Amino acid sequence: MSSSFGKLLKISVFGQSHGAAIGVVVDGLPAGEAIDREELQAFLDRRKPGKSPLSTARREGDIPEFLSGLENGVTCGSPLCAVIQNSDQHSGDYKALEQKPRPGHADYTAWVKWGGQADMRGGGHFSGRLTAPLCLAGGIAKQILARRGIFVGAHLHGVGGLTDLPFPEDVGPELFREVAAKPFPVIDDGAGERMQGAILRAKEELDSVGGVIECAATGLPAGLGDPMFDGVENRLAAALFGIPAVKGVEFGAGFSVAKLSGSENNDPFLLKDGEVVTGSNHAGGILGGITTGMPLTLRVAVKPTPSIGRPQRTVDLGTMEETELTIRGRHDPCIAHRAVPVVEAVTAAVLLDLLLEGNHGTF
Amino acid sequence: MSSSFGKLLKISVFGQSHGAAIGVVVDGLPAGEAIDREELQAFLDRRKPGKSPLSTARREGDIPEFLSGLENGVTCGSPLCAVIQNSDQHSGDYKALEQKPRPGHADYTAWVKWGGQADMRGGGHFSGRLTAPLCLAGGIAKQILARRGIFVGAHLHGVGGLTDLPFPEDVGPELFREVAAKPFPVIDDGAGERMQGAILRAKEELDSVGGVIECAATGLPAGLGDPMFDGVENRLAAALFGIPAVKGVEFGAGFSVAKLSGSENNDPFLLKDGEVVTGSNHAGGILGGITTGMPLTLRVAVKPTPSIGRPQRTVDLGTMEETELTIRGRHDPCIAHRAVPVVEAVTAAVLLDLLLEGNHGTF
Amino acid sequence: MSSSFGKLLKISVFGQSHGAAIGVVVDGLPAGEAIDREELQAFLDRRKPGKSPLSTARREGDIPEFLSGLENGVTCGSPLCAVIQNSDQHSGDYKALEQKPRPGHADYTAWVKWGGQADMRGGGHFSGRLTAPLCLAGGIAKQILARRGIFVGAHLHGVGGLTDLPFPEDVGPELFREVAAKPFPVIDDGAGERMQGAILRAKEELDSVGGVIECAATGLPAGLGDPMFDGVENRLAAALFGIPAVKGVEFGAGFSVAKLSGSENNDPFLLKDGEVVTGSNHAGGILGGITTGMPLTLRVAVKPTPSIGRPQRTVDLGTMEETELTIRGRHDPCIAHRAVPVVEAVTAAVLLDLLLEGNHGTF
Amino acid sequence: MSSSFGKLLKISVFGQSHGAAIGVVVDGLPAGEAIDREELQAFLDRRKPGKSPLSTARREGDIPEFLSGLENGVTCGSPLCAVIQNSDQHSGDYKALEQKPRPGHADYTAWVKWGGQADMRGGGHFSGRLTAPLCLAGGIAKQILARRGIFVGAHLHGVGGLTDLPFPEDVGPELFREVAAKPFPVIDDGAGERMQGAILRAKEELDSVGGVIECAATGLPAGLGDPMFDGVENRLAAALFGIPAVKGVEFGAGFSVAKLSGSENNDPFLLKDGEVVTGSNHAGGILGGITTGMPLTLRVAVKPTPSIGRPQRTVDLGTMEETELTIRGRHDPCIAHRAVPVVEAVTAAVLLDLLLEGNHGTF
Repeated sequence: MSSSFGKLLKISVFGQSHGAAIGVVVDGLPAGEAIDREELQAFLDRRKPGKSPLSTARREGDIPEFLSGLENGVTCGSPLCAVIQNSDQHSGDYKALEQKPRPGHADYTAWVKWGGQADMRGGGHFSGRLTAPLCLAGGIAKQILARRGIFVGAHLHGVGGLTDLPFPEDVGPELFREVAAKPFPVIDDGAGERMQGAILRAKEELDSVGGVIECAATGLPAGLGDPMFDGVENRLAAALFGIPAVKGVEFGAGFSVAKLSGSENNDPFLLKDGEVVTGSNHAGGILGGITTGMPLTLRVAVKPTPSIGRPQRTVDLGTMEETELTIRGRHDPCIAHRAVPVVEAVTAAVLLDLLLEGNHGTF
Repeated sequence: MSSSFGKLLKISVFGQSHGAAIGVVVDGLPAGEAIDREELQAFLDRRKPGKSPLSTARREGDIPEFLSGLENGVTCGSPLCAVIQNSDQHSGDYKALEQKPRPGHADYTAWVKWGGQADMRGGGHFSGRLTAPLCLAGGIAKQILARRGIFVGAHLHGVGGLTDLPFPEDVGPELFREVAAKPFPVIDDGAGERMQGAILRAKEELDSVGGVIECAATGLPAGLGDPMFDGVENRLAAALFGIPAVKGVEFGAGFSVAKLSGSENNDPFLLKDGEVVTGSNHAGGILGGITTGMPLTLRVAVKPTPSIGRPQRTVDLGTMEETELTIRGRHDPCIAHRAVPVVEAVTAAVLLDLLLEGNHGTF
Repeated sequence: MSSSFGKLLKISVFGQSHGAAIGVVVDGLPAGEAIDREELQAFLDRRKPGKSPLSTARREGDIPEFLSGLENGVTCGSPLCAVIQNSDQHSGDYKALEQKPRPGHADYTAWVKWGGQADMRGGGHFSGRLTAPLCLAGGIAKQILARRGIFVGAHLHGVGGLTDLPFPEDVGPELFREVAAKPFPVIDDGAGERMQGAILRAKEELDSVGGVIECAATGLPAGLGDPMFDGVENRLAAALFGIPAVKGVEFGAGFSVAKLSGSENNDPFLLKDGEVVTGSNHAGGILGGITTGMPLTLRVAVKPTPSIGRPQRTVDLGTMEETELTIRGRHDPCIAHRAVPVVEAVTAAVLLDLLLEGNHGTF
Repeated sequence: MSSSFGKLLKISVFGQSHGAAIGVVVDGLPAGEAIDREELQAFLDRRKPGKSPLSTARREGDIPEFLSGLENGVTCGSPLCAVIQNSDQHSGDYKALEQKPRPGHADYTAWVKWGGQADMRGGGHFSGRLTAPLCLAGGIAKQILARRGIFVGAHLHGVGGLTDLPFPEDVGPELFREVAAKPFPVIDDGAGERMQGAILRAKEELDSVGGVIECAATGLPAGLGDPMFDGVENRLAAALFGIPAVKGVEFGAGFSVAKLSGSENNDPFLLKDGEVVTGSNHAGGILGGITTGMPLTLRVAVKPTPSIGRPQRTVDLGTMEETELTIRGRHDPCIAHRAVPVVEAVTAAVLLDLLLEGNHGTF
């Protein structure tokens, strides 16, 4: 198992959904960075369930306790550990499922990997709940980046067949803030309402829906990242696939490049206020794995919540017979909108790591 | 810069397009593995240019020389180094471009990163030519995997708006072999002809087209990979984005999950010959970052060749004035079909690394 | 900062001496391993201060709380986090010192590195107190190894000019247990009494003494470790130098090889019960970075406690003037004997990591 | 196997003693650094055998060929690969030994690890010959460091029971240069002659002797390195134990700390020309894993050449019977003096890596 990532900024996530606590160690934060606890809490609250009929009824306090790494609210250079106590679990709901792997969940692969020893109550370490410590780490990264004029924001780009407006070319912190303040994180509220309708419809049908999240980062210097296997795309993708339920990651024009010609996809270089910019940004701010200085843009595909209320076919791993299961308990009919701040968090953490590394291309 | 990847199997790629040689060090290959040189050469030849009007006229011998790691054609446990001499470069073609970054290429970001010191003749270290050593490493991995009943194959899934048939659910080594033997790597030759038409049309228009590659691996045991940041998806994506021009990576249903309901996307667990299988494979053989034992499937988006014959806008970095450039030299109107074995190679290398690591979930 | 180590078993330590808590995340423990809490506590107690006049009067409870990674006392495959609350700190004792770096401590280098922002109360993250979470991780590793017949033990090899008996060639678990049960961890109690005398004498003189710890591991299979930079010695040394105050690490005959001839130092290969063994063990169980199957032996040099009661010369970093300081507070006249279990812990953790990796030389 | 090390500067060594070639890939060198080939060759020549009766008669050309990473003799940012062809091997000398592991060599452990498949002719990948590519990488690092006022030098500190003068407290580039220019790398030529006498005596007796090498680096800024497991000591030790035959590594006062009191060992902080310095340097320039700005000093123990001309006891792994072997072929009666530039090389490479990483303690 390796629930950690990062090179100079190392983030190590721990906890099971129904264990004593979940948390994160962030090793490598620069010293002297004040952490705005209120702002951090507001960020954490963006992924919180229980805000609307769209989400699970489980109420999570999610008030982090800082065990290390801060002195008087300022980073002190040593690893920061923050912990969120678990509570309000109804493990009983899950006990019956233990030998019957839920389709679309990691129950079966965990059973194979850990020989039936995994604590899979509530999804265990695979639970979406583990994105709370990720948001903790990423929320801190976001504050540190923002002080350097680097802003990271995301929105729900699509749910079902419905889509939001994409981020505009001049995307920036104001739009990020605006979207973040909304109860449903979209640019176009009309589209947002239609999406919410689709989610509620899925709920009524004891079903769920997937979605796509678009994320952007502005203010990045050109020259970050390295060619081939240590580029910005490699490192972001490696981390983003760590968010439960992510099945695809694309940058800039992404998969639509297959339909573009070179003359359409190439971004011409221009001058703007004496700086080199590109006229379009199909590259998503990255060429050869290295930042161009244009906004970094990426999209992440999030699968429909695998927990649905309908009966599903599975295998009883005890008796090795085919059987059926119906998941009761609480679950979200869609997790994509709740994953929006998580994508921001992971993106911010990777970017801060890259930034700490600096541009060591010359010396 | 970090042109290396892997945990127990470390692959380190070196070389510039117009330097003395390109090559690869593969550290961690198990000992006692015979390398079939003929089969390896045939694999390398699949990415070779100059086979048809679809590709650049540059002729590459690409006969690797093995400097270490073998004794009598069998791996001996110490790092394998293989080198391919460069020849037939026309650096003159590129000299004029040095201060004028080509849109869609890494010229500008390399210029920023290495302060104008990068050797960018022919794309330098960013050149598609560097995929030859990747195929060397991956071709060896493929042979080692095949001996264990694990097969990796890929095909051109789409070019422009045109698409091949997807891999069928019962994809396996025969189909892989069949596609690999074709001059144009598709399942449906009719679709292949239409794609080739689109590529030739782009060439005539001094333009280029992008594409999507689908790759699959069969015979993998369940239980490989780790949750969160060290899963099969994380590691494959991190490596696949190291292939030049890749802008998106998705697994199983990938981005289409956004349009699926949970009841559609969830793969029911069934028994087949006493083994747990899934009835469908939207998961692409991976749940919670860990292999299910079903075929691993992924798709990779490859952007249109940035080198096109049309005049393009750029900035002269010497005078800092906007200007125009027209790329002469040789270049492919599409690189996606040539990237098919490269995707296989990178996938095989990552899978062998995972396999060497074994399933250390229990002890 | 990187307070973590390990490849498949990743250990990440956090906390400051006078912060809220210290702790450790252990990522990669195999599932299904029962942890004997009593045995673990007994191991932790071996490094505890306050047992005798030899140690600081600071009383530490050091009762770990497990936040994750266990279900019913058995490892469940997900990262284990254990936390020890801090208490009984007298930060006031240290406040005056902040601008006056203590000779032999990391105060000055931390001040340079973190621009005066480091939390150095009680030594902060550099404090010997951080060896408690190391012992937690290592104590768990020891239990898992012991179940496989691999035992790790250590003793105080020397203090001042005085030395204990070295481990005998047939060192094994009984001797480890015997030494571990003693209040002062030596083989020869007479030597131990003389050492304690030297420590008490140093205390009376407001001074301190250094020491050497010898550690051995038995039951290791041959074939662990890799040549050059990933050998058993490389990995052990990299981790052992992470123990505060360690200034030297040697294996087998170590530095005394300089005085040996090849005919003396070479260990002849012999057969014993059909197994290949060596007649002597100057190699310390490692040849070419790889285990021979003989006992692994190493020694670690621990410098005298830098905190001494005598006036010392230093520089006031506020006024940039030379000055004098006298450290009050509590401090041990020797830390080498308390570091004995820490050396065992780090050694056990590295060995378990190597063992999980297995011998992937062939496949 | 992992014959690579480094974080931002990655060094990957390949080759077997009697294979086609040996070499190194250096990934992460800053661009724009001219490499003085003559100076590099002079550095490589320092480890060359065949200079005197002290060394093996094997003549090695050791003229490296650069395959990548340079343009017009200047680093261009992409991975540098340099290769040295092998020649003048007499593999026949070794053939008889294959099933009879030589005491003190890695023959037996390699046989276990790679199931008898390792290419161990001439020591294979474990051969001291592999230190040539290390010197290549380190020699380049030395040139880059020297341009920043950072100098690395070493001398033979002892052989048998005989010792050279230690480096003086004001050690610096002049003394480094002086020692490097000598045919036998010592400070005190009288001691050097006595050492050479001991080596020749060992040779006559068909035996060998070990030694200790002292290395220092001057001009380092304070603040490099990180606490606990990523400190300067951890990283240097991990790399230095990769040099064949190294059995111990110590920093500053090293193992002698066991005999020192705190009041002796602590280095008082003083001011010199307005800069904080220490009055002595028992810390070897490192406190808490972080550089103090004082000279970094370390010592490395090198075991006696295991290849000796005397009959030795071993086991025939084919018949599994005890037997005797006498190594013929060529071998050095001492390798410690030839390892002096190797220790410099590895130290320089690690220091350049640390320097590229910079001091990211604050931001």
